[in-house]
Amino acid sequence: MERISSKTVYQGEIAGVRIDRFRHEDGSEVEREVVSHPGAVAVIAYDDVHVYLVRQPREAVGETTLELPAGKLDVPGETPLDCARRELAEEVGLAADEWSELKRFYTSPGLIEEQVIVYVASHLHWVEHRPDPGERIEVAPWPLDDLDRAIEVCEDAKSLIGLLLFRQMLR
Amino acid sequence: MERISSKTVYQGEIAGVRIDRFRHEDGSEVEREVVSHPGAVAVIAYDDVHVYLVRQPREAVGETTLELPAGKLDVPGETPLDCARRELAEEVGLAADEWSELKRFYTSPGLIEEQVIVYVASHLHWVEHRPDPGERIEVAPWPLDDLDRAIEVCEDAKSLIGLLLFRQMLR
Repeated sequence: MERISSKTVYQGEIAGVRIDRFRHEDGSEVEREVVSHPGAVAVIAYDDVHVYLVRQPREAVGETTLELPAGKLDVPGETPLDCARRELAEEVGLAADEWSELKRFYTSPGLIEEQVIVYVASHLHWVEHRPDPGERIEVAPWPLDDLDRAIEVCEDAKSLIGLLLFRQMLR
Repeated sequence: MERISSKTVYQGEIAGVRIDRFRHEDGSEVEREVVSHPGAVAVIAYDDVHVYLVRQPREAVGETTLELPAGKLDVPGETPLDCARRELAEEVGLAADEWSELKRFYTSPGLIEEQVIVYVASHLHWVEHRPDPGERIEVAPWPLDDLDRAIEVCEDAKSLIGLLLFRQMLR
């Protein structure tokens, strides 16, 4: 498929909406409403005892949720890995010497461009912790031997995918 | 937290964008850009040999992806379970006698309201197959004994979460 035209009909702070027109290989054309998004990263940071989760009010869905530390790729020129390092320091106050990519996925590919890259970070050490007060993030160190319960409690895509794959990795 | 005002700044066919204002328990207020969404369902339909997946061009992300059959809750008054039954018939041509809810999750709770309910459907039988030609859906029966490979190939949230939990359920 090939994008043959694109019209931005709304541009907000994070999300925008475009009406894009695509041509398929057989020549037929379709129009799609697409929510633009810069992409995001999430981090599974763990030591011998804990994986470091966060609790945060998510106004869009009306709940405070338990999640992996995460953030949008909203700094121009920053690589996804540098964004992950920055978010782990800002939200949890940790740095890590070992990083690897676990999975990348689309959150809702029928509508939104957003792709999330989930990293695993280990060999941790504490750094200065400067959370954004507007985000109201509370660090929740979670026992590694109770990942099953974290998977029950988490209710967002990146945290479920990350923790399900991480549990399999640990076994 | 409590929503104290809401202003729709864009309303498209599927998605809309609102600027909502929330008051937290401590009295402080925050403004958030929220993408509205009716919610969606996805179905893990399986028999003794296969789980029934679909391949579909996803113009928003520029790829044809392997996914669970799924659809938006866009018919007024229809329950999520009835929506799941309808999508399984329309996209795959199957009906099921046994249904259970496997998981519900938010796709991207920092930005979008969308919640997905994943169902497991079994005791299948074929029904009349009336796919929407605009969706270009191809049915992909996938061997149950090769779920690991499906999890490697899938790259969207609902399919990864559904198949990871389903694999655990089968073990």
